[in-house]
Amino acid sequence: MSTAGQVIRCKAAVAWEAGKPLSIEEVEVAPPQKHEVRIKILFTALCHTDVYYWECKGYTPLFPRILGHEASGIVESVGEGVNDLKPGDHVLPIFTGECKECRHCLSEESNNMCELLRINCDRGVMLADGKTRFSINGKPIYHFVGTSTFSQYTVVHVGQVAKISPTAPLDKVCPISCGICTGFGATVNVAKPKKGQTVAVFGLGAVGLAAAEGARVCGASRIIAVDVNPRRFEEEFVNPKDYDKPVQEVIVEMTGGGVDRSVECTGSVQAMISAFECVHDGWGVCVLVGVPKKDDAFKTHPMNLLSERTLKGAFYGNYKPRTDIPMVVDKYLNKELGLDMDKFITHSVPFADINKAFDYMLQGIGLRCMIHLDA
Amino acid sequence: MSTAGQVIRCKAAVAWEAGKPLSIEEVEVAPPQKHEVRIKILFTALCHTDVYYWECKGYTPLFPRILGHEASGIVESVGEGVNDLKPGDHVLPIFTGECKECRHCLSEESNNMCELLRINCDRGVMLADGKTRFSINGKPIYHFVGTSTFSQYTVVHVGQVAKISPTAPLDKVCPISCGICTGFGATVNVAKPKKGQTVAVFGLGAVGLAAAEGARVCGASRIIAVDVNPRRFEEEFVNPKDYDKPVQEVIVEMTGGGVDRSVECTGSVQAMISAFECVHDGWGVCVLVGVPKKDDAFKTHPMNLLSERTLKGAFYGNYKPRTDIPMVVDKYLNKELGLDMDKFITHSVPFADINKAFDYMLQGIGLRCMIHLDA
Repeated sequence: MSTAGQVIRCKAAVAWEAGKPLSIEEVEVAPPQKHEVRIKILFTALCHTDVYYWECKGYTPLFPRILGHEASGIVESVGEGVNDLKPGDHVLPIFTGECKECRHCLSEESNNMCELLRINCDRGVMLADGKTRFSINGKPIYHFVGTSTFSQYTVVHVGQVAKISPTAPLDKVCPISCGICTGFGATVNVAKPKKGQTVAVFGLGAVGLAAAEGARVCGASRIIAVDVNPRRFEEEFVNPKDYDKPVQEVIVEMTGGGVDRSVECTGSVQAMISAFECVHDGWGVCVLVGVPKKDDAFKTHPMNLLSERTLKGAFYGNYKPRTDIPMVVDKYLNKELGLDMDKFITHSVPFADINKAFDYMLQGIGLRCMIHLDA
Repeated sequence: MSTAGQVIRCKAAVAWEAGKPLSIEEVEVAPPQKHEVRIKILFTALCHTDVYYWECKGYTPLFPRILGHEASGIVESVGEGVNDLKPGDHVLPIFTGECKECRHCLSEESNNMCELLRINCDRGVMLADGKTRFSINGKPIYHFVGTSTFSQYTVVHVGQVAKISPTAPLDKVCPISCGICTGFGATVNVAKPKKGQTVAVFGLGAVGLAAAEGARVCGASRIIAVDVNPRRFEEEFVNPKDYDKPVQEVIVEMTGGGVDRSVECTGSVQAMISAFECVHDGWGVCVLVGVPKKDDAFKTHPMNLLSERTLKGAFYGNYKPRTDIPMVVDKYLNKELGLDMDKFITHSVPFADINKAFDYMLQGIGLRCMIHLDA
């Protein structure tokens, strides 16, 4: 029997207040409105950004809230005006959108800074009516980045839904919806190392590992991983804690002048500065990926720029969510992506144990913990 | 009678100490040594960098010195091992070099950061023997950026000499050796605005005007000039002094989100920050050209980068001195450059009046003052 048009009761992990364990609750999920899609989430992983907004340090609290944005699922029903998706479609909800109509979506130079659906961490409601689709006994539960995937059902704007091949294994492709594309795209779409060049990657969580995989796929001759956590590395590795001088100086010495490309995936402003100052003059390119704190300032001597270095940021690996992601999944299915997806999912828990995923991340254990919403 | 191999006595404008008017003296110019070229300078112009090192604020003084680096002339004689230049060749000495052998010169990604001959403002001697080729009664007079063109004859490393067409009018093409290429190249080679895009240029001296001409040649739909000196503009013009908010906010409002490209030609670190923060998110590119002070720090919130803006520096417009400059001159001769060279030379003085050129620049009058060394 179809649930379309009905309120669905299902389990969701609700964050009632900052930093407190999530609580699995029965929530009511309203039907999708105009340009909205209701999705049955099968798999979701925990990403640093969820933890960041759960800890809510320095941000305006917005609770109770359903977090979660790296996920995969199946369309349950669609709202008015949704023509390119139908119940049963396999999809990845994406934390940032593509309306296909604004100046950014239409620009040939811009990638994914959609005016309507650009990531918004502070909004807890749907655009259509400024209200939530989640509630418990009539009390509204806020959304997170338009996805709120820590729920067995969620409602997402159609512009934030990538329709993928029905043959894609939904558990495996789940990290494509955030971490993998963010890191891999930063390297292959933005830093673009040439075959034989050297690449430094700062921060070897899932995003950094994906960035390093991108460097490997591009044919980098040397990949230098920089992290303060020594457990994480297979590659050539530099721990800033092992030196009493700035790590950029260490890397410049190791490479006879600097690396050709660097990708910063920690969000620490000091790491950003190091990542920029460790690229070679004349041609070095540094790509920033990690999300900074509110009051951070990136600071460098302008001569570091004038000697022909380039500094740029990447957001979601410069992929357009609806246009590019189905193709990324296809490439993965055709084994053309070059990236070993199995490296990323190091842990797995049933939905009831979602707080364990938070523990792993806070302790720096593993990369992605896959949460099974049906288990 | 050939002067090759002989010491030449000629007039030069010597800076005896910081900030004091230059004095026209008879100097002795030694013959060129290995890989050196002696050039009869016919025209030279004054550039801000000369004034900067003449004022010598915050730098280690190096006097007596012969300044000057934007110039044109004719080869008088060549030293050992110079095979691609001969007496009578028309040339532009360039303040930075191209050895054609180092990692930068051979790199397909680097442009002009030659390891051997990269600009060096602190060195006052020739590389071959660590000595000067200028003297007065045996007292050495220091060189400046390897060119020292405020002299009727000078000695320059062959890697800093661009051989140009003998049909090029040496007075007109003189500014190609520094200001014009620095600004024009920053736009056409680095910022690369697309047809119809908007460009902001900070600082409308000769370099900034050349950058704006570059934008016009690229087909920019709107060129916004930013300067605190209101006399200088024909283009659309913003004077930061007219507003009580940061000029980047003014430009973002004027353009509905920011310009597509910006080029900073003042060297003020505040202007650099404004130039970066006034480009549109998603695709904006800011190119820094102006030379900063020693202790400046470029500072911005990293989110300005993460929202897909690009910040890069350009040095000598990314032209390779020996490889590219002859071609730039040819394009000028064939009227393919698109740039109106006559706009740049606003004043003209005989060599004896070289201090007038300093007065004009210090008072912000005009753009380039052409100094005629034979007059």
